[in-house]
Amino acid sequence: MARILYDLHGIDEGLRFSPYCWRVKYALAHKGLDVETRPWRFTDKEALAFAGHDKVPVLVDGDEVVTESYDILRYLDRAYPEAPLLGEGVAEARARFFKHYAERSLAPAMMRTIIMDLLNAIHPGDRDYFRETREKRFGRALEEFHSPAKGLAQLDAALEPLRGHLQESDYLDGDAPAAADYLVFGSFMWARCVSSADLVSNADPVYAWVERMLDQHGGLGRRAMRVTDIEGAYR
Amino acid sequence: MARILYDLHGIDEGLRFSPYCWRVKYALAHKGLDVETRPWRFTDKEALAFAGHDKVPVLVDGDEVVTESYDILRYLDRAYPEAPLLGEGVAEARARFFKHYAERSLAPAMMRTIIMDLLNAIHPGDRDYFRETREKRFGRALEEFHSPAKGLAQLDAALEPLRGHLQESDYLDGDAPAAADYLVFGSFMWARCVSSADLVSNADPVYAWVERMLDQHGGLGRRAMRVTDIEGAYR
Repeated sequence: MARILYDLHGIDEGLRFSPYCWRVKYALAHKGLDVETRPWRFTDKEALAFAGHDKVPVLVDGDEVVTESYDILRYLDRAYPEAPLLGEGVAEARARFFKHYAERSLAPAMMRTIIMDLLNAIHPGDRDYFRETREKRFGRALEEFHSPAKGLAQLDAALEPLRGHLQESDYLDGDAPAAADYLVFGSFMWARCVSSADLVSNADPVYAWVERMLDQHGGLGRRAMRVTDIEGAYR
Repeated sequence: MARILYDLHGIDEGLRFSPYCWRVKYALAHKGLDVETRPWRFTDKEALAFAGHDKVPVLVDGDEVVTESYDILRYLDRAYPEAPLLGEGVAEARARFFKHYAERSLAPAMMRTIIMDLLNAIHPGDRDYFRETREKRFGRALEEFHSPAKGLAQLDAALEPLRGHLQESDYLDGDAPAAADYLVFGSFMWARCVSSADLVSNADPVYAWVERMLDQHGGLGRRAMRVTDIEGAYR
């Protein structure tokens, strides 16, 4: 049976920018598992009704339906124990911190920097939905929330532990990437797909890590379509 | 042979506030190892000359002399493999992130909040040394660097991933504390010993974790002398 991943797309069906879906695509590649991605849009809740969920990623693996990126990584470790992603016990507990670090520390800073680019990259039919849900979350208009100067300063501070870590080793998980790297790198893929903003200077150890991550698994990230690849889409 | 830890003290010989020494004291307790602490002051470089080092912690364990808190934790895992602290492989790689998170994200925010309390808690004979080295590091006078309002706002942002993690589990390392908890908690002990500042509100999951950590290993942290315990020392 085919393995299917519901994957958020934007203004072009090939523009896949969800940080959570990127975690899963890297995790599947890490395990050497093929997957067929199914393009999905924010407002197409119907298409996910079978999963009892309203957000991607949704992974359908034979008879198994799994939602939420972290739970998908756990599922993959259970179903395919070779090449662990999260691992067990204390290794898994520590990996979970990187999920929170990406979502609560890095992503909000990036969001502030790229949100107008993000809006522009989203499918036109999803933009009202996006604006409404995000303005409610941020408590203000997207245009007011948008502040690259503040976002980049916030990101610079938030990157400090990552920077320290990557001065000492090539990947968060040591000599080779695993779940901690994928959990964090998803946010970098998200920003990369929808924006041409330079989030880190090329002298930063984080920059070199991003480059290495882009090359992993046959250039999985580097080959991904960016909004800048779509004629007329990027302003 | 006795196991000896050189441990920074302040205005009172019993006031032990080094975050790095606290990591080691918790790590030794985790392993169930006794230790005799030897009070040491910033300017007493001579006393550490035997270790070829000029900072604490310095652990003397029989014939072994080990410096730097993280390296001491690694040493303890090698010499006493029961009850792992950092563990091996990917678990160890992930643990290292918590060192950087504590040192580059939490400690600078706390420092900004408590630095004048810290100066006041330091042994009078060490204060010139402290002021000189820190003013050089911060590029300004301690009084200018000091800003509880900025420090607490910075800390609030820096605590976000910790908060998310501790909403899901009692300790960073899962159901029981290990190296990730000790690496981070050292900074909280540092602030607690020298200041009465409330760094986190009591509704914060981080607060509940701090309370649990204080109770670990027979109340090791809770029993520690604070500057507020010393008559006339706290202004």
